[in-house]
Amino acid sequence: MDQRISVITLAVHDVAAAKAFYQRLGWRTWTGLETAEIAFFQCGGLVVALYSAAALAADTGLDRSRPGGITLAVNVRQRDEVAAELAAAVAAGGTLLKAAEEKPWGGTVGYFADPDGHPWEIAWVPQFPLAADGSLILPGD
Amino acid sequence: MDQRISVITLAVHDVAAAKAFYQRLGWRTWTGLETAEIAFFQCGGLVVALYSAAALAADTGLDRSRPGGITLAVNVRQRDEVAAELAAAVAAGGTLLKAAEEKPWGGTVGYFADPDGHPWEIAWVPQFPLAADGSLILPGD
Repeated sequence: MDQRISVITLAVHDVAAAKAFYQRLGWRTWTGLETAEIAFFQCGGLVVALYSAAALAADTGLDRSRPGGITLAVNVRQRDEVAAELAAAVAAGGTLLKAAEEKPWGGTVGYFADPDGHPWEIAWVPQFPLAADGSLILPGD
Repeated sequence: MDQRISVITLAVHDVAAAKAFYQRLGWRTWTGLETAEIAFFQCGGLVVALYSAAALAADTGLDRSRPGGITLAVNVRQRDEVAAELAAAVAAGGTLLKAAEEKPWGGTVGYFADPDGHPWEIAWVPQFPLAADGSLILPGD
């Protein structure tokens, strides 16, 4: 797995209210793919997402509706890397949470947990091409 | 608060075992300030730390010993920015977890929680000067 973080996803109960909080701190949203369920902030070479806790729980299969639910994502460059990285994580002692699956929005995503239960997402997201150095720069940001 | 993440801290029950897991995934540690309680990985312009769950719980005052405990840190350039950023977060609707305090290792750190309870650390860490663009590059990495 590349030594890189692409996205930090914070489970939130009210996306609009959470977004307003970070905006009050001076953060600027990226509205390219914003919906009622998700908001994005460019943070250097990675992205912070505020995401509906219920939707994140459905994605990961974990009970992430409680406060503190966070997932870290490593985005990859090719769709078939998702399953390969998940397999490598399991071989290294991780636990598979969700096998790689194609999503309605066109990407492929899977999750594993590290030995302490921290959930990691491996994601191929065609809307988010990675820069040469692995940074995730939101298109047009 | 700058739109930036400096450090992602994962609470772990056994630092050595957790470090070995990430090393098996191909990650390389930065050993400059490594101890039995903490391990560091450079990830682009930020740092991932594996930190004793008990020590993190003591730092934040939260029960972070359960799996899934994560804190996100924004490092600042001047010691007096820590208290100012915490005050701004509280004014924006956050909850103060730990007021700014000087640490035995020389830095000043405080914590707030966002409206969903996600704990954020504001840290002035003299050992970790920020790059001009706000990236946190570990010395010598």
